[in-house]
Amino acid sequence: MPKINAARLLSDLRRFAKFGAYRTGVHRPSYSEDDINSRRWLAEQYETAGLRSYIDGVGNVFGIPRSEERALLIGSHAESQCYAGWLDGALGVIYGLEIARTFAKSPGCLDLPIATVAWADEEGHYVPMLGSRSFIGDIDQEEIDRATNVDHGLPLADALHAAGLARVPRSFIEAQRYVGYLEGHIEQGDTLESSGKRIGIVTSIVGTWQYSIVFYGTQNHAGATRMAIRKDAGFAAAKLAMAVAESFPQVAGPSTVWTAGRVTLEPGAPNIIPGKAEVLFQFRDAQMSVLRRLDTLLRELVEDTALKTGCRFGILQTEAGAPSHMDLTFQEAIEDAAEHHASGAHMRMPSGAGHDAQIVAQKLSAGMVFVPSIGGISHHWTENTADEDLVLGCQVLADAAEAILRAGGKKSGAHVQER
Amino acid sequence: MPKINAARLLSDLRRFAKFGAYRTGVHRPSYSEDDINSRRWLAEQYETAGLRSYIDGVGNVFGIPRSEERALLIGSHAESQCYAGWLDGALGVIYGLEIARTFAKSPGCLDLPIATVAWADEEGHYVPMLGSRSFIGDIDQEEIDRATNVDHGLPLADALHAAGLARVPRSFIEAQRYVGYLEGHIEQGDTLESSGKRIGIVTSIVGTWQYSIVFYGTQNHAGATRMAIRKDAGFAAAKLAMAVAESFPQVAGPSTVWTAGRVTLEPGAPNIIPGKAEVLFQFRDAQMSVLRRLDTLLRELVEDTALKTGCRFGILQTEAGAPSHMDLTFQEAIEDAAEHHASGAHMRMPSGAGHDAQIVAQKLSAGMVFVPSIGGISHHWTENTADEDLVLGCQVLADAAEAILRAGGKKSGAHVQER
Repeated sequence: MPKINAARLLSDLRRFAKFGAYRTGVHRPSYSEDDINSRRWLAEQYETAGLRSYIDGVGNVFGIPRSEERALLIGSHAESQCYAGWLDGALGVIYGLEIARTFAKSPGCLDLPIATVAWADEEGHYVPMLGSRSFIGDIDQEEIDRATNVDHGLPLADALHAAGLARVPRSFIEAQRYVGYLEGHIEQGDTLESSGKRIGIVTSIVGTWQYSIVFYGTQNHAGATRMAIRKDAGFAAAKLAMAVAESFPQVAGPSTVWTAGRVTLEPGAPNIIPGKAEVLFQFRDAQMSVLRRLDTLLRELVEDTALKTGCRFGILQTEAGAPSHMDLTFQEAIEDAAEHHASGAHMRMPSGAGHDAQIVAQKLSAGMVFVPSIGGISHHWTENTADEDLVLGCQVLADAAEAILRAGGKKSGAHVQER
Repeated sequence: MPKINAARLLSDLRRFAKFGAYRTGVHRPSYSEDDINSRRWLAEQYETAGLRSYIDGVGNVFGIPRSEERALLIGSHAESQCYAGWLDGALGVIYGLEIARTFAKSPGCLDLPIATVAWADEEGHYVPMLGSRSFIGDIDQEEIDRATNVDHGLPLADALHAAGLARVPRSFIEAQRYVGYLEGHIEQGDTLESSGKRIGIVTSIVGTWQYSIVFYGTQNHAGATRMAIRKDAGFAAAKLAMAVAESFPQVAGPSTVWTAGRVTLEPGAPNIIPGKAEVLFQFRDAQMSVLRRLDTLLRELVEDTALKTGCRFGILQTEAGAPSHMDLTFQEAIEDAAEHHASGAHMRMPSGAGHDAQIVAQKLSAGMVFVPSIGGISHHWTENTADEDLVLGCQVLADAAEAILRAGGKKSGAHVQER
């Protein structure tokens, strides 16, 4: 059994959080100086773990075993959301590093090749899941050339150039080289904590459907325009939020979630009736049938709201990801390991958050392990997990990796650098 | 009877709209190059009308008659909202210029002194009603030194310096020099148009009470956080909007208006549940008792909304202007003139919008004339008024000015430059 080094794991997690440290979290957006420095540091660590390391043309960091045997790929993404937590992404990256090092020094595991990866821009500062999508061949060069930063609008091409990646080839998956993919991650919700569990075995990753909904009213003076004749686009946005709150629960599944994360009123002055309101709205579920029903309902509610408020409307679907299912054999391997190290303190659960694993699962068998988020908090600098859970998650993932590699995988693939 | 020159009036209105022309409207924010150029142009025009002109330390442009007799002050504000209409403010300024020119050339009116003014920053790019408040002594130097631009945040002091006004003294009203103040303005609503009237005789100007309302929820991951445990600050803001829509009509007066013109969600990402929502909310009424009742109700609704959504809240009143009443004698003079030129096509009405007249009315008898806004639209570049109504408004104001000056005023004051 590969025994991970708990002190080394925690020390490296804390070392990694120094790249872009912000309060008790990190600010390490994709291709920032801190992000690039953290990836160079990772490449060095992969080498010391006996792997051949390199950074590809979108910033993915790979650690490739020197063996010709089919390897198990382990990792997550290295960048963070803006001013966010120290574990999201980084945890799974350091898990991969720690497991590769452990296997390299465990006499019984020397014939079990671990490959490591730190994906780029899962958080979508430019393109959500950019690194893993690039790896499986799901994004063409044109989309990359067109992409801009969601915050400051500068081109991705400029960021890659500044990071020294402009002429570096992208790496693509190649068949028959991998047993599968494992990813460790914080849960980012409170299901584990509120259930008194320490390990989550991910069964599926939800599909996220996202929309830009725009109401067009009549911009006018907030003092001189009678209430009776107003067409207030901002009020339409509020009314839609209430209609969704009333109607969605009747159609949603037990785990469905929905969010209006951004609302923009134009012109946005206190003394002007908003002439335009844009709502960024999304919902998520693990069942495609539920996603389809919600899509139909949402469109009805938007139209009905526009009708009732005298506004015109537009609705544009900007994301329509299918739910992704984790490999059943991998789930069993993780569950066996969890039962061994934390008997009764584990549960199978869907992931409400999106992860690189859902992308990689299109090409390889994939599995995910969750550890509890204290208070269910993530995407905020106060995000945290108890040290003993951080260590437990890595040991469970290491044991599952051993079992999977000993059993061999169902699907497979490998990667090659673009010429 | 002073007969205005309709062609000259329309020509000057169109000339003035070239300062900061934007589509069919203007973009002439306070102290922008276009705003300052328009004020210099006005000062020249005042001189050609026989007045002594100057620009004071906050950008007010005055045209002072050479006579020692008590004068009637006529004007409005010269700057515009951002990317807004060509008439708002500018109309009343050009009315003042046209009436001064007409009186100067009308043999029967040579003994009736007209003073003109173009107030600065009524629109509040820095401080709402800055120019008229400065003139009546309602703003101290400290507030001016502290003020910053609402859009780009740069200091007012820098803008005044760039405009060459840093060392120019401010002008203050002086007792016994004025018969009163008249202002022409577009209605900015659709009351005249929908009533089939061409002239509005303003009876009162509403008081505006404005609030910054903040809900604090729990910022969290939009995928991993169950609906049941969310504290969504954005949803609280939407719920408040609906509660206001249901409850306000039961307490409001027939002319009360209320608006949420700006809503800001933080952090504002589509995949993060908003942890904070700020709503800029205002209501307006001509009755102080109504304003007080709505204040009480709003506070109850905010507290109740916070309770129901699990959010904390803060509410800060940022404006609490008292309603202002126009002089009854002035209303009669305007009504007589309107009946003469447009029999039956006039009405008395309160102003839902704020105007410099409400400030000046604290020191002088004041009156206002409204002309119709096509479609009730203002604060937008499509704002417009029929040419014949533009001309009618000016002629009515000129006749009213003559009547008021012949009768003499009740209150009076005058101004002097700061030493």
